[in-house]
Amino acid sequence: MDTAPFRIAPGETVDLAARPTDVSQGLDDDALEAILASNAEALEELQERLYAESKQSLLVVFQAMDAGGKDSTTRHVFGPINPQGVRVWSFKKPTPIELSHDFLWRVHKHAPGAGYIGVFNRSHYEDVLIVKVHGWASGETIEARYDHIVNFERLLASGGTKVVKIMLHISKDYQKERLVRRLEREDKHWKFNPEDLKERALWGDYMAAFETALARTSTPEAPWYVVPAENRDFRNAIVSQIVREALEEMDPQFPAPTFDPEAFPPEAIV
Amino acid sequence: MDTAPFRIAPGETVDLAARPTDVSQGLDDDALEAILASNAEALEELQERLYAESKQSLLVVFQAMDAGGKDSTTRHVFGPINPQGVRVWSFKKPTPIELSHDFLWRVHKHAPGAGYIGVFNRSHYEDVLIVKVHGWASGETIEARYDHIVNFERLLASGGTKVVKIMLHISKDYQKERLVRRLEREDKHWKFNPEDLKERALWGDYMAAFETALARTSTPEAPWYVVPAENRDFRNAIVSQIVREALEEMDPQFPAPTFDPEAFPPEAIV
Repeated sequence: MDTAPFRIAPGETVDLAARPTDVSQGLDDDALEAILASNAEALEELQERLYAESKQSLLVVFQAMDAGGKDSTTRHVFGPINPQGVRVWSFKKPTPIELSHDFLWRVHKHAPGAGYIGVFNRSHYEDVLIVKVHGWASGETIEARYDHIVNFERLLASGGTKVVKIMLHISKDYQKERLVRRLEREDKHWKFNPEDLKERALWGDYMAAFETALARTSTPEAPWYVVPAENRDFRNAIVSQIVREALEEMDPQFPAPTFDPEAFPPEAIV
Repeated sequence: MDTAPFRIAPGETVDLAARPTDVSQGLDDDALEAILASNAEALEELQERLYAESKQSLLVVFQAMDAGGKDSTTRHVFGPINPQGVRVWSFKKPTPIELSHDFLWRVHKHAPGAGYIGVFNRSHYEDVLIVKVHGWASGETIEARYDHIVNFERLLASGGTKVVKIMLHISKDYQKERLVRRLEREDKHWKFNPEDLKERALWGDYMAAFETALARTSTPEAPWYVVPAENRDFRNAIVSQIVREALEEMDPQFPAPTFDPEAFPPEAIV
């Protein structure tokens, strides 16, 4: 699979309306599931090496409009990996204590330590998305935040954390389909919140806020990918491919033993 | 599968040498794998309900001698569950900051919040196991800790957290086999630490410390299970069974919608 078309180059002008939301790259569902399965196997091994090496970490950030599939993607891509090595964190409405600090404080706390894969379901990007769309912070504050984010992610990189950011890209029509489904199925009602419709009504503003955020914060250290997310098999496969490529680039190695293996022949264990 | 034989009754005198380490309950590997798979499916659904309900949480504590299979059990039992709803925490050697607080401070921080399943790989029990065996705290301190632990786990229960504690029980011979394997395979060297042999030499002291801890801290709110862990298919199946029964007893329910479904027919979404 080719992940390059979905990567945002630093400073690139992003036109989300021109970017596809439903893509297959000529692969049918069986082929896509096979890719996901083969990537899952590779990820298992890469995660074990990352954990054993314990020098680098990977942070995968998901952002999307409501019903964009953040939960489901997380489950399909990271589900097969040893749960001990993966830490998923969902950022909700900030608490009063969180709000009493700078906007990166609560995020920094959950940055993955050496050896771990961290997955953010929503993130500090909410502070330049929902906050911007609703005008909860001044234009000047938002403007400054793009730089704060770039510097923060550079700090993470300096500590050995590779950051990969993924926007799951869907159309407004597709969101409608998914929301209707939540209303039709009683066991999905808990996922529906009438407030979501107010955000939906601001779709255009959100797209504009995403476009600016993507352009301003996609860096070589922490690139953004805009992934077409309506074909769910494609979405899972391409996200697993992006994660796999990131880990392969990190190339974690089993560490040299901290002991002299010669000094510990099996007979040494009594 | 019958989990009852492995549950420690409150105040029960525990004789670990008399408790089996290799059990199948008449089930062959295929049957055991089928039970694990069927429990995994049930756990997926129960976890979704727990998360949706967001009122209760489950904490599963693993303790074992080195090479007892804590990592592998965690992976097999919790791997199939949505990683978003499961938080695994491995407790290592305490940091200076952690040591500057009471022994439950660092553990309390990682107690699962409502809707979550927490898994502890090692736990506050280290403070009445390794600490006791090495005499790093006085007998009086250790003695007091059993009560602190019982009270602490009662506090968790009062906040809606069900606590289930599992000792993966192996023999000293079996540990030897596993340690030899780590030395024979280069990709397992990172799991071997010569220091482990010093702990192995204290096997008898560890068993005595476990026996006291089990007897003193198995309560109706937070029972201990001593699970035979040498037959790995049995170990995975019985642990998944214990976790399943705990969640079934909690019986999490999808919450009533926070909106009037009548007021939101699909046409309401524009």
